[in-house]
Amino acid sequence: MEKIITFGEIMLRLTPPEYNKIDQTNTFMANYGGGEANVAVSLSHFGHKTYFMSKLPPNILGDAAIQHLRGYGVNTDYVVRGSTTLGIYFLETGFGGRPSKVIYNRKHSAITRIEKEEFNFEEIFSDATWFHVSGISLALGEQVREVLMECLEYCQKYNVTVSFDFNYRSKLWTIEEASESYKNVIPYVDVVFSSYFDCNTILGIEANESIKNLMEKRVDLFRKVIKKYDIKYIFGTDRIVYSATENSLAGYCISETIEKYTDPIRFNIYDRIGGGDAFASGIIHGLIKDFDAPDYALDFGLVTSVLKHTIYGDVCVLKCEDILDYMQNAGNKGVDR
Amino acid sequence: MEKIITFGEIMLRLTPPEYNKIDQTNTFMANYGGGEANVAVSLSHFGHKTYFMSKLPPNILGDAAIQHLRGYGVNTDYVVRGSTTLGIYFLETGFGGRPSKVIYNRKHSAITRIEKEEFNFEEIFSDATWFHVSGISLALGEQVREVLMECLEYCQKYNVTVSFDFNYRSKLWTIEEASESYKNVIPYVDVVFSSYFDCNTILGIEANESIKNLMEKRVDLFRKVIKKYDIKYIFGTDRIVYSATENSLAGYCISETIEKYTDPIRFNIYDRIGGGDAFASGIIHGLIKDFDAPDYALDFGLVTSVLKHTIYGDVCVLKCEDILDYMQNAGNKGVDR
Amino acid sequence: MEKIITFGEIMLRLTPPEYNKIDQTNTFMANYGGGEANVAVSLSHFGHKTYFMSKLPPNILGDAAIQHLRGYGVNTDYVVRGSTTLGIYFLETGFGGRPSKVIYNRKHSAITRIEKEEFNFEEIFSDATWFHVSGISLALGEQVREVLMECLEYCQKYNVTVSFDFNYRSKLWTIEEASESYKNVIPYVDVVFSSYFDCNTILGIEANESIKNLMEKRVDLFRKVIKKYDIKYIFGTDRIVYSATENSLAGYCISETIEKYTDPIRFNIYDRIGGGDAFASGIIHGLIKDFDAPDYALDFGLVTSVLKHTIYGDVCVLKCEDILDYMQNAGNKGVDR
Amino acid sequence: MEKIITFGEIMLRLTPPEYNKIDQTNTFMANYGGGEANVAVSLSHFGHKTYFMSKLPPNILGDAAIQHLRGYGVNTDYVVRGSTTLGIYFLETGFGGRPSKVIYNRKHSAITRIEKEEFNFEEIFSDATWFHVSGISLALGEQVREVLMECLEYCQKYNVTVSFDFNYRSKLWTIEEASESYKNVIPYVDVVFSSYFDCNTILGIEANESIKNLMEKRVDLFRKVIKKYDIKYIFGTDRIVYSATENSLAGYCISETIEKYTDPIRFNIYDRIGGGDAFASGIIHGLIKDFDAPDYALDFGLVTSVLKHTIYGDVCVLKCEDILDYMQNAGNKGVDR
Amino acid sequence: MEKIITFGEIMLRLTPPEYNKIDQTNTFMANYGGGEANVAVSLSHFGHKTYFMSKLPPNILGDAAIQHLRGYGVNTDYVVRGSTTLGIYFLETGFGGRPSKVIYNRKHSAITRIEKEEFNFEEIFSDATWFHVSGISLALGEQVREVLMECLEYCQKYNVTVSFDFNYRSKLWTIEEASESYKNVIPYVDVVFSSYFDCNTILGIEANESIKNLMEKRVDLFRKVIKKYDIKYIFGTDRIVYSATENSLAGYCISETIEKYTDPIRFNIYDRIGGGDAFASGIIHGLIKDFDAPDYALDFGLVTSVLKHTIYGDVCVLKCEDILDYMQNAGNKGVDR
Amino acid sequence: MEKIITFGEIMLRLTPPEYNKIDQTNTFMANYGGGEANVAVSLSHFGHKTYFMSKLPPNILGDAAIQHLRGYGVNTDYVVRGSTTLGIYFLETGFGGRPSKVIYNRKHSAITRIEKEEFNFEEIFSDATWFHVSGISLALGEQVREVLMECLEYCQKYNVTVSFDFNYRSKLWTIEEASESYKNVIPYVDVVFSSYFDCNTILGIEANESIKNLMEKRVDLFRKVIKKYDIKYIFGTDRIVYSATENSLAGYCISETIEKYTDPIRFNIYDRIGGGDAFASGIIHGLIKDFDAPDYALDFGLVTSVLKHTIYGDVCVLKCEDILDYMQNAGNKGVDR
Repeated sequence: MEKIITFGEIMLRLTPPEYNKIDQTNTFMANYGGGEANVAVSLSHFGHKTYFMSKLPPNILGDAAIQHLRGYGVNTDYVVRGSTTLGIYFLETGFGGRPSKVIYNRKHSAITRIEKEEFNFEEIFSDATWFHVSGISLALGEQVREVLMECLEYCQKYNVTVSFDFNYRSKLWTIEEASESYKNVIPYVDVVFSSYFDCNTILGIEANESIKNLMEKRVDLFRKVIKKYDIKYIFGTDRIVYSATENSLAGYCISETIEKYTDPIRFNIYDRIGGGDAFASGIIHGLIKDFDAPDYALDFGLVTSVLKHTIYGDVCVLKCEDILDYMQNAGNKGVDR
Repeated sequence: MEKIITFGEIMLRLTPPEYNKIDQTNTFMANYGGGEANVAVSLSHFGHKTYFMSKLPPNILGDAAIQHLRGYGVNTDYVVRGSTTLGIYFLETGFGGRPSKVIYNRKHSAITRIEKEEFNFEEIFSDATWFHVSGISLALGEQVREVLMECLEYCQKYNVTVSFDFNYRSKLWTIEEASESYKNVIPYVDVVFSSYFDCNTILGIEANESIKNLMEKRVDLFRKVIKKYDIKYIFGTDRIVYSATENSLAGYCISETIEKYTDPIRFNIYDRIGGGDAFASGIIHGLIKDFDAPDYALDFGLVTSVLKHTIYGDVCVLKCEDILDYMQNAGNKGVDR
Repeated sequence: MEKIITFGEIMLRLTPPEYNKIDQTNTFMANYGGGEANVAVSLSHFGHKTYFMSKLPPNILGDAAIQHLRGYGVNTDYVVRGSTTLGIYFLETGFGGRPSKVIYNRKHSAITRIEKEEFNFEEIFSDATWFHVSGISLALGEQVREVLMECLEYCQKYNVTVSFDFNYRSKLWTIEEASESYKNVIPYVDVVFSSYFDCNTILGIEANESIKNLMEKRVDLFRKVIKKYDIKYIFGTDRIVYSATENSLAGYCISETIEKYTDPIRFNIYDRIGGGDAFASGIIHGLIKDFDAPDYALDFGLVTSVLKHTIYGDVCVLKCEDILDYMQNAGNKGVDR
Repeated sequence: MEKIITFGEIMLRLTPPEYNKIDQTNTFMANYGGGEANVAVSLSHFGHKTYFMSKLPPNILGDAAIQHLRGYGVNTDYVVRGSTTLGIYFLETGFGGRPSKVIYNRKHSAITRIEKEEFNFEEIFSDATWFHVSGISLALGEQVREVLMECLEYCQKYNVTVSFDFNYRSKLWTIEEASESYKNVIPYVDVVFSSYFDCNTILGIEANESIKNLMEKRVDLFRKVIKKYDIKYIFGTDRIVYSATENSLAGYCISETIEKYTDPIRFNIYDRIGGGDAFASGIIHGLIKDFDAPDYALDFGLVTSVLKHTIYGDVCVLKCEDILDYMQNAGNKGVDR
Repeated sequence: MEKIITFGEIMLRLTPPEYNKIDQTNTFMANYGGGEANVAVSLSHFGHKTYFMSKLPPNILGDAAIQHLRGYGVNTDYVVRGSTTLGIYFLETGFGGRPSKVIYNRKHSAITRIEKEEFNFEEIFSDATWFHVSGISLALGEQVREVLMECLEYCQKYNVTVSFDFNYRSKLWTIEEASESYKNVIPYVDVVFSSYFDCNTILGIEANESIKNLMEKRVDLFRKVIKKYDIKYIFGTDRIVYSATENSLAGYCISETIEKYTDPIRFNIYDRIGGGDAFASGIIHGLIKDFDAPDYALDFGLVTSVLKHTIYGDVCVLKCEDILDYMQNAGNKGVDR
Repeated sequence: MEKIITFGEIMLRLTPPEYNKIDQTNTFMANYGGGEANVAVSLSHFGHKTYFMSKLPPNILGDAAIQHLRGYGVNTDYVVRGSTTLGIYFLETGFGGRPSKVIYNRKHSAITRIEKEEFNFEEIFSDATWFHVSGISLALGEQVREVLMECLEYCQKYNVTVSFDFNYRSKLWTIEEASESYKNVIPYVDVVFSSYFDCNTILGIEANESIKNLMEKRVDLFRKVIKKYDIKYIFGTDRIVYSATENSLAGYCISETIEKYTDPIRFNIYDRIGGGDAFASGIIHGLIKDFDAPDYALDFGLVTSVLKHTIYGDVCVLKCEDILDYMQNAGNKGVDR
């Protein structure tokens, strides 16, 4: 029986309405999100059985985050309660030439006080099928990393597929600080979401210098990573930012033997946050359907990500049929009535 | 003295704010709309004397719908009150690649219990000048159709011009179910709003097979309809959907002798619902001004429709000068101050 | 292991904000509620394991209702999906001398098309411990009543405690229509929520004529019901309406041997809907804790009901400690900081 | 056939939401109101045929005010359009010990530029049955007073019943400035709404000095006014302000022969503005039903006023049955469902 | 020249609208507040020249807090910028029997990283006339306490009047932890805001055991504090909580020679937060006007506090004339128009 | 020491939310703005010391406008209080082909009653470094013009740099009415913001007829103005309106010796009002940095204007680093996190 676990922090996100800046508003729209939580919600919408693993404060703010997850069908039995602080982040939604801005108020949040003793890893992982985590969790401190490493050990023990999204955030730590942690994690991973820049700077791996073509360079670099760490697939996207409200995305998938690219899709943006998580969730959905058909997963992931940009909040609250509908109509459907 | 009557259902429309999906919102924006009601409101804004004919429940929800109509200057003396249920529909406003979605909660609404005995047709139609209805009303059941047929009989008796918008809705009934009703109505009609697909599938009329050019094919088909049913004009639009928030429209008008096309106008969309009703209202306005100048009507109708897409709600709450202003400035006016 | 099941309809409730009347608003606040669903949510907040049994349309409106339940921790595995229409009701919140008004748009909703074949009663009831339903469900039509009777049969089979709230609604049916259905249900019930009026008119039972004192009369009548139908407890409240925003409530509990009354509590009202459901949920919580201590249940139920009136929406989203806190401080606590 | 005309200014009212003060808000709730317009709307809700006579600027702000009136069923054929400015007033809603505050931005508004030539008095008044105006209109300047005097002449000519609400506003003019205008108007009036203070200071009439009892004093004074100006009834209310959110009102009616007082009703206030206009509208409704039964009118008027205080906005958007329902239940009805 | 300085933390306050609980809302109303900041704003509204001394993060959240202060006329030249986190607190507004709840997310906020080196105390205090601080600041950690003690040294040096509000918060620290810090501060203070409980438990001072009367006991205790620490006045209030929405307050002032009590005022509550700060600001205003007339200060302070409870947000945005108006009308003024 | 003064009117701006038209909304978003006030706010955000000089009514509406200015760091010591009316304007935000509409309710506002005696010009200007005003102020009547001319005299006396934005508004006066006033002002001005049309029609200056090239013609005309009035720089923009939501802007700067043009920037519009004021503020900022480097000023001004179009309200609440960030990234930055 399928059982997907994602591990990380879920925060309260506060966004001024109507593209206001923070010093213009006296209201905030509230929702809850965080990389791995978003992946769990999205996969739950695609019909999968998902669990979120985290720590939240034992107050009504923590309750509200749990209610958000449960409402979307994510099982929260593995969310422990303790410490005092909910992570919060503020989003100023950009418009046109004005970029979106994220401001974190997440230091010292409950998850940073997480402890191995709070979880029954045996129970959690013995029947798990997939585990997903991102580099943001790595940045949340020693205690989070310890719990994560324990998770990965159990994944190995029980043969759970592991996906990992690099998601490096320079506002949280430096490349130097990050490097070791990433290197500890990668050996456990089957499916990686990453860019050339990530692998190059964080893992410190270089492409063959003689290669001049950027695409080939990336493939060369990725194949080295794949070999070194025994990885199955590396997925990623190339984004072109025309403005804060218009981007394009193209997806790629590299494995030891295959090299796959999609055409770019150009699209309007309503809420960019969570676009990467949506991509990951679409890929995971595709691979769960058929692990040996990365093409389908790549297409499904890309469209999931594109459509996420049209939805308010951190999470892609669409169903499989919405994604498939887009894939068939190339997004050119006006009203469904 | 001019007296325009439209007949149909007016519903409460509930729309989540800020492009939210229904499972994301805890507030709905409310307004009232329905094909023929929208045409009445729009014509009232263009300075015409309009009446709406319908049935609404005798509660405050019905009152609110009437207040909406009356506020916009539509006479509601021909709205009878009875039965229990107000038709409601939900609109999820699409964004970019995510299409808008309409969900109906309108089954068994008051209008489906309408009866001929509730109206004084003699009084209503003896001094009427124009009558408008759409195919949506046909789909609302036997009782609605009976009242409608009585209306059409009186239109014939008093020489009232009749316009009819095909507006076929596959969520309400099948082509097969619809076909007979449409065929009963068309003989009474002077001005038709329709597409090739509508006439072809619903009326079961075929263009000459030897014609390969699509435009010519349509003209051929429409001329057959025009002849068979003694119709004066068939109007329609060709829409290209670039995304849920960007479309283009081009208009056409076919009669026995003329064949008229506009250039397409490409435009941004704020609220697409009612775009077709706005087109019809613009055409009717133009034809009332001069029934023999369909060119002007076509231009006026197309711009009315284009501008409707920039307005929240089902109805085009613009005045003639707004339409004319656009026609003169080609929509390139930033601020009017 | 405890397993509470409630059965009934959950509707979308639409409320104009800020005490507006329906013809004054262009926004509605949306939440989801229904007698038995409210009881399930409230019990879930008190820490119980609850299931809701119902039918909802297979569209995003149905999804949203499910999300509401799941978010509050209610298991929705026994909510089947089908038919087309979500029940909707409108609430005009009263103020002072102006009463609240409820307008139903719930006819022909999905639950009225419910069928026995859609449920696995064996699985649902074999490990159940408590079943709750109200008279509103009885009023929803033959199909609902059939499913309900099947539920009651299984309750009997598996010795599940049954509670029943009379909740007679004159807007849905007449006393005459209701009478037979109620009489069919009562024999299966252990705990009844009812008033003198309900038992007298609907069950057609009379108190001893010679008793003049109203309280004694009620006890006499209730004891007859208790004996006739082998009921364990009858609970209820006496409400005094000072205004739409200020009421008082006193609770009572009658069994074959005991007769228990609370002092009245006078309180301010923010949202009265669901006050009776909160009372029921508090009683059930108390009886689950100790079925033989109706005193505690009565106090707990009354305070739950009183506090519900201070909370927006249909449901009492408070926890046990909030109720107990009130019981200790007599509601005289200003700020908890 | 009944035809009620009210004459005065309708303004845009802007109110900060949620009891905010003006320097705390960045949103205003908007509605339209003005003494005589409120009376017209209220009477329209009671089922009467009403006309509003005024002047509004020929822009969309004027359109919106007209839409407000028309939506509530008031005929706006006698609202002329011209000049440039819409009267605006701001309301800070008080709470408890903090009083509500009204700030006018109405100087030089369109109605102050009104002219006799803009109206066809013959057409307006020849079939009129009732005319209502208040002292606020008198304060709006010479041009308004001129039009008003012309109205009164025509009322006399066509035997139209005239009601007049003193409504003296010290923010608009002084007693001295007001006195002459009031004296010019009173001779045309049949039904007066006034207080002891009004009649005493503005009309300069004194009660018999030897009377010490305040009630008797008032009767004495009112009877002098009644005799001097041949008035049929003087109505008014005695208000006790417990706080900005709790008041009581008692009504009185004095004629040459009768002297009638109601008990005071104590009530909660949601929006006090328009309470006096509601009283006038209730009285007028009662007198239209039976001019010789001032008792009923007084009761109806008082309850209309009390209930207005529970409704957002300037106008009492209730129907006769709501008023009668309160009169029967003494305001002690919680939920109507 | 007058120069009032207050020192402490200013936080972002997030409140669910319409009395919602945190798990019911998807919007928060935002404003900025904190004990000493509230006093500064209130005094600025009373016409005084005020400065706020604090530390805020160098991001747009800090900017917004500064904008709040500056908009209300508080000079922010002494707010240094640094560290990363803005203190946040959530308020669930209570209703009737349901108490308000405060949830802090303020640990590790910028002010906890404040340092003496960041201020030029000489410049700040050499021309200051009044300094105000509260016990909340004492609870924010060693660094805040150090800066505060330096402030107090400079107050002594430059003869600045010091007022201190005990404001003990059990959610921040224990009595034991607090005791020493309070004892360090009190010797510098001229005007104290405190309760019997505060002085007794925190300062560890006992009233003469033989006194039985509670009022006399308090006076005895306070006089001991006054003597021991050379204090001029101790002010405070006695609050009775009838419900979360109705309280009463009575004020007292004790000095070495005088003993002054006001009658209690019973009032409705819209927003209780900041009631104590408003009291302090009213007292300070009164004492600045005439330090030797504590009676006037006490009355002014009490009414300021009472009226604050009718105002949304943490701060009393009223002017002297509003306070005086209430004092003259005993709060019984309905509409000021 | 730098001291920038701007002089003009600040108004309350009322905007229907969500692109609604005025007759569709029952809420207005409120903010405060006016050409010269916007320039002051924007310059304050760029770190300059700014003063606003104006007149506002002595009520809470005036207070709110002052709070807006002060919150953004503008000194309001030179805003006198008096008269009765706050200028108000309504903005209907356009969308796509539907233009924005401005409706003024500003006649007879407080500033039109401004008087020279209300200001101490000596104190204001003796240490001033820059003075900015626009043609809108000229249109506000004789009294405003008199005060302005006095300002300009003092600027001359104290060698204050003067910038002037033509900002001709045809809704306020005709070219003929405007011409003389502009001619009186220009001799005092150092930096002009103007178009060919402005200089040509208002100043009545013609370019050499023989020049056919439009760009050369403009330079020729501007150089004549520069010579005649001894002006240092004329700045301006060429705007192309693709739709109400998409424009492009290119900037130019002409002096006696230089001729400078930028490339056009095409951009999405969220709120166009204040785009010209933002341009002026960016130029002034650049010139204050280095008066002899108009190139930098031009680039900075153009980007400030472009980014203003992405911000709600009249004012550009961005900081220098936001502008510079755009200049470096060409507006292609999606999320700053």
